[in-house]
Amino acid sequence: MTISMYQVSVPVFVNSLKNLSAILHKAVAHAEQKKIDPSVLIGMRLVPDMLPLSRQIQLASDNSKGPAARLAGVERPVFEDTETTFDELQSRIAKTIAFLESIDAAKIDGSEERAITLHIGDKDMHFRGQPYLLHFALPNFFFHVTTAYAILRHAGVGIGKLDFLGSFPTE
Amino acid sequence: MTISMYQVSVPVFVNSLKNLSAILHKAVAHAEQKKIDPSVLIGMRLVPDMLPLSRQIQLASDNSKGPAARLAGVERPVFEDTETTFDELQSRIAKTIAFLESIDAAKIDGSEERAITLHIGDKDMHFRGQPYLLHFALPNFFFHVTTAYAILRHAGVGIGKLDFLGSFPTE
Repeated sequence: MTISMYQVSVPVFVNSLKNLSAILHKAVAHAEQKKIDPSVLIGMRLVPDMLPLSRQIQLASDNSKGPAARLAGVERPVFEDTETTFDELQSRIAKTIAFLESIDAAKIDGSEERAITLHIGDKDMHFRGQPYLLHFALPNFFFHVTTAYAILRHAGVGIGKLDFLGSFPTE
Repeated sequence: MTISMYQVSVPVFVNSLKNLSAILHKAVAHAEQKKIDPSVLIGMRLVPDMLPLSRQIQLASDNSKGPAARLAGVERPVFEDTETTFDELQSRIAKTIAFLESIDAAKIDGSEERAITLHIGDKDMHFRGQPYLLHFALPNFFFHVTTAYAILRHAGVGIGKLDFLGSFPTE
C-alpha cells in the first residue's frame, strides 16, 4: 500500500463518522435509561458560546464532505442543517458516508497541488490540496468529532476512548 | 509535492503542537488577568473521570513522538510526566517538537507497511504503518489537543477555532 490523498481523506472521515454514529446510539440508550428528553442532549453545549451537539455533528459532516468534494473536484451535496432528532442526525451521518463512499479514489489521488478556494465570511482563502487536507480539513474534522464526544461524555453518556477510536483496521 | 507518510505525521503534529503552545500562553495571560492560580487550570477536567489539562498535553506529546518514532524505526524519548506548571508544559511541548523535527523524513517515508506493535495493558496490538498512522495515531493525537482546548475554553480562556487551527500553510 502507498499513502495517498484519498487514503488520508475518505477512509479517515468514514471510519470516524461510523464511530460517531455508534456513539450517538449510546447517547440514545442513555437518554432512554435515564428518562432524559433526547432533545436536551442534542441541544447541549460545553460552554454557552460554543455550538450544541447537533451543530458539532453537522460540522463533522460539512468538514468531511466539503474537503472530499473539493479535493475530488466534484460538486458537494448541500444539507440544510435542519436535524433536530437523533434519527435525523444518524441520517445526516449516513448521507455523508454515502456521498464520501461514492467518490472515485482516482479523483482525489493526485490532488496535492489542486487549487482550492474557501469563502469564509467576506474573505477568500487560497490553498493547495495537500496543506488544505493536512493542516485545515483534518484538524477541523477531528475538532468537531471530539467536541461531540466531549459533550456526550460531559452529559454522562457511558463512552470512552475506545468508542472514539472505534473499530480501526489493524493489519 | 506528493503526500507521504512523513508529511501526514511530523508536520501535522508540529503545527498542532505549536498551536497548543500558543493556546497555553493565552491561558497563562487569562490566569494572570483574572488572578487565577495557574495550577487550577492545569488540574481542570471536563468531567471528573476524564484526565486533567496537564495529562491531555502529556498525551498530545506521547501521541505524536510515539507514532513518529515507531514509523521512523527510531527510539522514542521517554518523558516522565512530571510537569506541574505552564512553563514545564511549554518545555514538554518544545522538547516534543525538537524530537519530531530531528527525525529524517526519509526514515518515515515508505513506512506504510512497517509492522508496529503496541503494548496496551496486557495486550499486544499489531498494526501496519499506514492504518496505524491514519486510523489510530492521528485521531488519538487530535483527541487530546482538542480536549486540552475544550478544557481551557470551558475555563473561560478567550480562545476560538482560529487558535486551534493556528497559522496553517495556505499556498
